[in-house]
Amino acid sequence: MASKNLLLLAGDGIGPEAMAEVKKLIAAMNAKLGSGFTTDEGLVGGCAYDAHGAAISDADMEKAMAADAVLFGAVGGPKWDKVPYEVRPEAGLLRLRKDMELFANLRPAICYPALAASSSLKQEVVEGLDILIVRELTGGVYFGEPKQIIDLGNGQKRGIDTQVYDTFEIERISGVAFELARTRRNHVTSMEKRNVMKSGVLWNEVVTQTQKARYADVKLDHMLADAGGMQLVRWPKQFDVIVTDNLFGDMLSDIAAMLTGSIGMLPSASLGAPDVKTKKRKALYEPVHGSAPDIAGQGIANPIAMIASFAMCLRYSFGMVDEADKLEGAIAAVLDDGLRTKDILSEGMTEVGTVAMGDAIIAKF
Amino acid sequence: MASKNLLLLAGDGIGPEAMAEVKKLIAAMNAKLGSGFTTDEGLVGGCAYDAHGAAISDADMEKAMAADAVLFGAVGGPKWDKVPYEVRPEAGLLRLRKDMELFANLRPAICYPALAASSSLKQEVVEGLDILIVRELTGGVYFGEPKQIIDLGNGQKRGIDTQVYDTFEIERISGVAFELARTRRNHVTSMEKRNVMKSGVLWNEVVTQTQKARYADVKLDHMLADAGGMQLVRWPKQFDVIVTDNLFGDMLSDIAAMLTGSIGMLPSASLGAPDVKTKKRKALYEPVHGSAPDIAGQGIANPIAMIASFAMCLRYSFGMVDEADKLEGAIAAVLDDGLRTKDILSEGMTEVGTVAMGDAIIAKF
Ligand SMILES: CC(C)[C@H](C(=O)O)[C@@H](O)C(=O)O
Ligand SMILES: CC(C)[C@H](C(=O)O)[C@@H](O)C(=O)O
Repeated sequence: MASKNLLLLAGDGIGPEAMAEVKKLIAAMNAKLGSGFTTDEGLVGGCAYDAHGAAISDADMEKAMAADAVLFGAVGGPKWDKVPYEVRPEAGLLRLRKDMELFANLRPAICYPALAASSSLKQEVVEGLDILIVRELTGGVYFGEPKQIIDLGNGQKRGIDTQVYDTFEIERISGVAFELARTRRNHVTSMEKRNVMKSGVLWNEVVTQTQKARYADVKLDHMLADAGGMQLVRWPKQFDVIVTDNLFGDMLSDIAAMLTGSIGMLPSASLGAPDVKTKKRKALYEPVHGSAPDIAGQGIANPIAMIASFAMCLRYSFGMVDEADKLEGAIAAVLDDGLRTKDILSEGMTEVGTVAMGDAIIAKF
Repeated sequence: MASKNLLLLAGDGIGPEAMAEVKKLIAAMNAKLGSGFTTDEGLVGGCAYDAHGAAISDADMEKAMAADAVLFGAVGGPKWDKVPYEVRPEAGLLRLRKDMELFANLRPAICYPALAASSSLKQEVVEGLDILIVRELTGGVYFGEPKQIIDLGNGQKRGIDTQVYDTFEIERISGVAFELARTRRNHVTSMEKRNVMKSGVLWNEVVTQTQKARYADVKLDHMLADAGGMQLVRWPKQFDVIVTDNLFGDMLSDIAAMLTGSIGMLPSASLGAPDVKTKKRKALYEPVHGSAPDIAGQGIANPIAMIASFAMCLRYSFGMVDEADKLEGAIAAVLDDGLRTKDILSEGMTEVGTVAMGDAIIAKF
C-alpha cells in the first residue's frame, strides 16, 4: 500500500480548532475504513516564531517536503503585527509554497444550496454557483526581485516590488486550468491587465498559444482583471475555470469566495508538478479563510473549510474519489439538517460549535 | 472672469455619443446661465492612432496641458487589439495621467435609490451606498521601470513590471483622502498587501504617519487589499473613503462601481496638485465605464456617467458647487421619473436612448 503520510500544520488563531476536527476524522477513517493515514505535526506562522524565531523551522520544512500531503490551518494575528518582515507569520506559508514549488492553487467557489440565501448577492445570482479559480502561486509580484525598501535620504523612502513571469510558468499553470476545465464545463477565462502590464501581455500570449497547441477543444476567453472582478460580481455563473496570476488570483478568489456567502466553507489545494517517476505531486491543502484571531479559542469557528480541504486532499493526493465525494456529501447533509456555526447562522437554523459541527459531519460520513 | 477652457477628448466606442450630450449641456449653460465655457476638441485612443499613429498627438497633449479641465470619453476596441503596445489606445489615457501629473483619482460609488433594485447585490446591502475610492494614479506598477518583455532564448520570454512607490507619492494621495474624508464621514480605510509587498509596507507606514501628523481627527483603518475586496462585497456601507494604490484602485473601484448596479452611471475625477500660485489643479474627468464597442453607434449608450463626470468638473475645477448639485439632482430626477437607458432598464420603466436621456437631464437642469 502506498504511504499516506500527512503533515498537519495547524498554525495560529482558529487553525488548531479547525484542524482538531480533521484529526478526529482521520482517526475515524483509520479505525473504521482502515485508511492507513499516518500523521505528524509541526509549527507554522506566529506560533513557530514564538517557538524558534522563524515563521517555519528548517526541520518542519523538511517534514513538509517529505510528506505525501500537508494540511495547513491559518497563520497570523495582531500579536505578530510588529515582528520583522522576514519572519512575519505569512512568511511561513510563502516559504512552503515556494520551496515545495506549489505553483497551482485551486480555489473552488461553490455556493451550497443551503446557504444561497446568506450571500450578500441576490439568491438567483449565486444559487448553484460552481466556479474554479486556478491561481499561479509561486511567481509574480509575490516573489520577484528586487523587493525592498530603499532609504533615499531627506525622509524619503522607496518601496519596490517586481512582477515577473516566464513563459514556462504561464504555460504550466494554464495547462492545469485547461486539464481541469475538461473535467468540468470545458471553459477557461484568463485574466490579466495586458493593457498596462508587460507580464500581462506575455500571459495573454502564452495562454493563447497553449490553448491552440494542446487544448483546442476547450473554450478560451480573455478578460482584463478589473473587468473580470466586475463580471464576478455581476454574473458569476458565466465562468467555469478562471486562470490568473498570483496577485490577481489572491484578490479575485477572495471575492469569488465572498459571493458564495460562505467564506468559512471554502477549501483550497496548492499543487506542484507531478514527479517524473512517481507521478506524485507535492501538495498543501488549506481553508480560504484566515486565522480569525477575534474568535479564536471560543469553540465557535467553522471547521467546514478545513474539512473540505481534507476532502480535496483525498481527491487530489490519494485518488480517493469516492471518499472525497462522500465527505463533501456529509458536509452538504449536515447543512441540509439545519446545523450552522455562528458565521453562517440564519433564522430557524440550529447553532452549533466547532466540535459539534465536526462530530455531525463525521457521523454522516 | 476666470477662464473656463475645456478640452473635449471623446475617444472611441460610445465616447463620442456620450460626449455629445455634454456638449449640448455646455451650450445650454452658456446660453441660459452665461456660464462662459469655451471648448476645444482633440483625439485620443484608437481614433488618434488611426489619424496619426499615436494614441494621443503632441499637439493634443499640449492642448490638454493648457486647458482648465479635460473631459474624457473612453478609449479602445477590438479594432486596435493588434496595434503595437506603445501606441495602443490606453497609452493615450496613461500619457494624459502621467504628463498632467493627475495623481489623485476620485471614484465615487453611489447607489442611486431608483436603481438599488438593479444591483446583483441585495437591496439592503447597497441601498444608500455612498463611498469614495481615492486611487493613486501616476505611480505603482502602471509606470515603474523596468517594464519589458525579454527574450531568454529557447522559446522562453520573461515579462517584467515594477511596482514603485516613494514616500512623497503616498503622502500626497493620503492627504487628498483625509481632506475629502473631512467633508464626508471622517473615515479613511487604507488598503495594500503589506504581508507580501514591500511597497505595501511603506504605504501602510506613510499613511499612518500622515494621519498622526496632520489628520488625527480622521479615523483611519488599514485592510489588506484582498480582505478589502471581500468586505466591499460583504458590507460596503462600512466604508467612507478608501485610499489605495494604482493597481488595487483599478480593481477595487471597478468592483465598487458594479455593486451599485449602475456602472453606466459613475463618474470619476483625476486631479493634479494645486499650482503654488494660482491654486488651480490640472484635472481630467471621465466616466468609469469603458468604450463598450459592442453597442457603439446605436444611440443606446447611457450618457449619465459622462454627464456626472461634468458635474464633478463643475465642482472640483470651477467651484460651481450649486450647479454641480443641481446637475446631480437633475440626473436623480429623471431616474425618479422612470427614464432608463437599456443598460439599467427594469420592468415598468420607460426605455430611452442616449439623446433622449441627455435632453431629459438638460430639461430638468
Ligand atoms: C496570507 C497571505 C500571504 C496569502 C496570500 O496573499 O497569498 C492569503 O491571502 C492567501 O490568499 O492565501
Ligand atoms: C483603460 C485602462 C488603462 C484604465 C486603467 O487600468 O487605469 C481603466 O481600467 C481605468 O480604470 O481607468
